[in-house]
Amino acid sequence: MSTPLIHPTAHVEPGAKLGENVSVGPFAVVHANVEIGRDTELGSHCEIGLPSPLSGGGPLVVGPGSVIRSHSVLYEGSTYGERLITGHRVTLRERTTAGRNARFGTLTDIQGDCEIGDFFRAHSNVHVGKHSRIGNFVWIFPYCVLTNDPHPPSHIQMGCVIEDYAVVATMSVILPGVRVGSHAVVGAHTLVNRDVQPYTLVAGNPAKPIRATREIMLRDGTGRPAYPWPSHFREGYPDDAFADWDSDQPAAG
Amino acid sequence: MSTPLIHPTAHVEPGAKLGENVSVGPFAVVHANVEIGRDTELGSHCEIGLPSPLSGGGPLVVGPGSVIRSHSVLYEGSTYGERLITGHRVTLRERTTAGRNARFGTLTDIQGDCEIGDFFRAHSNVHVGKHSRIGNFVWIFPYCVLTNDPHPPSHIQMGCVIEDYAVVATMSVILPGVRVGSHAVVGAHTLVNRDVQPYTLVAGNPAKPIRATREIMLRDGTGRPAYPWPSHFREGYPDDAFADWDSDQPAAG
Amino acid sequence: MSTPLIHPTAHVEPGAKLGENVSVGPFAVVHANVEIGRDTELGSHCEIGLPSPLSGGGPLVVGPGSVIRSHSVLYEGSTYGERLITGHRVTLRERTTAGRNARFGTLTDIQGDCEIGDFFRAHSNVHVGKHSRIGNFVWIFPYCVLTNDPHPPSHIQMGCVIEDYAVVATMSVILPGVRVGSHAVVGAHTLVNRDVQPYTLVAGNPAKPIRATREIMLRDGTGRPAYPWPSHFREGYPDDAFADWDSDQPAAG
Repeated sequence: MSTPLIHPTAHVEPGAKLGENVSVGPFAVVHANVEIGRDTELGSHCEIGLPSPLSGGGPLVVGPGSVIRSHSVLYEGSTYGERLITGHRVTLRERTTAGRNARFGTLTDIQGDCEIGDFFRAHSNVHVGKHSRIGNFVWIFPYCVLTNDPHPPSHIQMGCVIEDYAVVATMSVILPGVRVGSHAVVGAHTLVNRDVQPYTLVAGNPAKPIRATREIMLRDGTGRPAYPWPSHFREGYPDDAFADWDSDQPAAG
Repeated sequence: MSTPLIHPTAHVEPGAKLGENVSVGPFAVVHANVEIGRDTELGSHCEIGLPSPLSGGGPLVVGPGSVIRSHSVLYEGSTYGERLITGHRVTLRERTTAGRNARFGTLTDIQGDCEIGDFFRAHSNVHVGKHSRIGNFVWIFPYCVLTNDPHPPSHIQMGCVIEDYAVVATMSVILPGVRVGSHAVVGAHTLVNRDVQPYTLVAGNPAKPIRATREIMLRDGTGRPAYPWPSHFREGYPDDAFADWDSDQPAAG
Repeated sequence: MSTPLIHPTAHVEPGAKLGENVSVGPFAVVHANVEIGRDTELGSHCEIGLPSPLSGGGPLVVGPGSVIRSHSVLYEGSTYGERLITGHRVTLRERTTAGRNARFGTLTDIQGDCEIGDFFRAHSNVHVGKHSRIGNFVWIFPYCVLTNDPHPPSHIQMGCVIEDYAVVATMSVILPGVRVGSHAVVGAHTLVNRDVQPYTLVAGNPAKPIRATREIMLRDGTGRPAYPWPSHFREGYPDDAFADWDSDQPAAG
């Protein structure tokens, strides 16, 4: 073994629970109140398990087979399932749960108090406000914001709800308390100020329904529909991930 | 005392003036040309007092009781009042002044040559261009940009002016030289291309006046107005902070 | 010499090729597979030459006279010409080439597989999707995104093309496969969903042609046109940089 698992420059506090084969990069900081699953990589310059008075005192739990890229900050008091993947400089705050194989791209900021399902994908620089609820297989693209305060600043927090398989494209804002239905698509640069129906594409400022997502064709010459996207995009998912989506899609519009 | 104030892995240059009870986190860098007030916490992986040819040679001055979170970079040549709070990965550049208890959220970037009042709040990922002037009790929400170049790229810099108590909501852009009046509200995802009158809500691309802010009701069932926001939101402010706002608000529209 | 070129806290792997007078900041990590040109500064907390299975195995090559600011991450498998300048916390990924004097501002994220010309300027927090092609003297302002997936998520990647001297202003999104013509200007907060003609200003959601760029006047009292911008803005460029632009500009509209 030429490279030690814990880089000699890393700072790991006594009490941190690191599973087998967990590696810790140069200049990383691992606090005591963490439980990191086996076969996980912690990148350089990370801070893992940052204490916070808002955490409720619980540990940071990261499932096995995870990758935390450099300069990321994960607070104590949150739990992530197996194969969590982060980009660089990600912030994941307190009292958040995510299922298996969540991916939080570079610069993404999860503000805390969020519930996130399995196989979530936040591409890059996504901001998820407190009290958001996100389903399974949801995709959110760069520079999107899920808000929560209907008349900022105030003490009222109305988190957004993003249902299973929904897609939010680049530079879109979801206003407080709005629900984006399952298999819906929010087009790029959209302000979503009311609920989005399932299997519907919306776009504009403010968002308007454009068409059924089923009418959008793949631009690959095959004439196949682009949505529901699991029909053609299965990269990185388990074989049985989409076993039940097919039955509830409406006929093509 | 179990934890030393200056983490053994931190790099503090000789000459740095650190007040009583200043703590410095792991792998932080503190340059010589700084004056950090007492009871301040500097987080991990920060770089504090970064030298710059644009600084004019002055020190970085941070008031007492401040918190600088991890991975932030503060240049020399700027002065912040007491209880400065930053999120993670904040950049605060040269020749900027801010009053007491300014808060710059995670990923916020203050480009320099800015004047900022007391109790400023930049939520997260806010970009403030050079030569901006920001009043007291201003709130700017995530992914907003204050621009300054009317025909980029050019040598002309016309900073924005954001007056006292004004609010700029998520993903909005203020065009160069524009003034947002006191107690005005810029709605989410708005392009502001002309001055905004005080006590007015604007929204859209480009922004249009929507209504008097006084007509927006709190969504808490009380039937109270949401603006001016100091009527119901006082968290973290001193008791006398809003002593004078009430007299100059217009009657409800 | 009072300051060593390689800070004693930096971690430089054996095999890294550093030219004469290359400095490495505190807590920086330099991997083995790099060739850094002479007179280059690597800032604090950087990670330089990060290995990646997507890199094809090539080194990270950085030309002489470059400045990489703190907390930046540069992957192996990319090549940058002389005088590369980055802001803080920049991410430059695999299989990208850029010409001389490219500047990537703070928080900018180049996703990889990009071709970039000479004298490129990404101001701050610019996101460039995979397979983008960017010409010479292009300017992209804060919070702009160049996308690539026409129906996300999918395996189809249609990179944008930004031609020589084009300008993309703050908070704009370029949709997949769109071409922005030479000397065109995209106004702030614009969604560009079709090709932009050369020497044309577009704005809005979606973008519409507004006027010939030549009709936009400099706001400096001189009555001179603001575009093509090289007529008045030459900071930091070599004297012969614009020798050939003048001949092909259309008459003022």
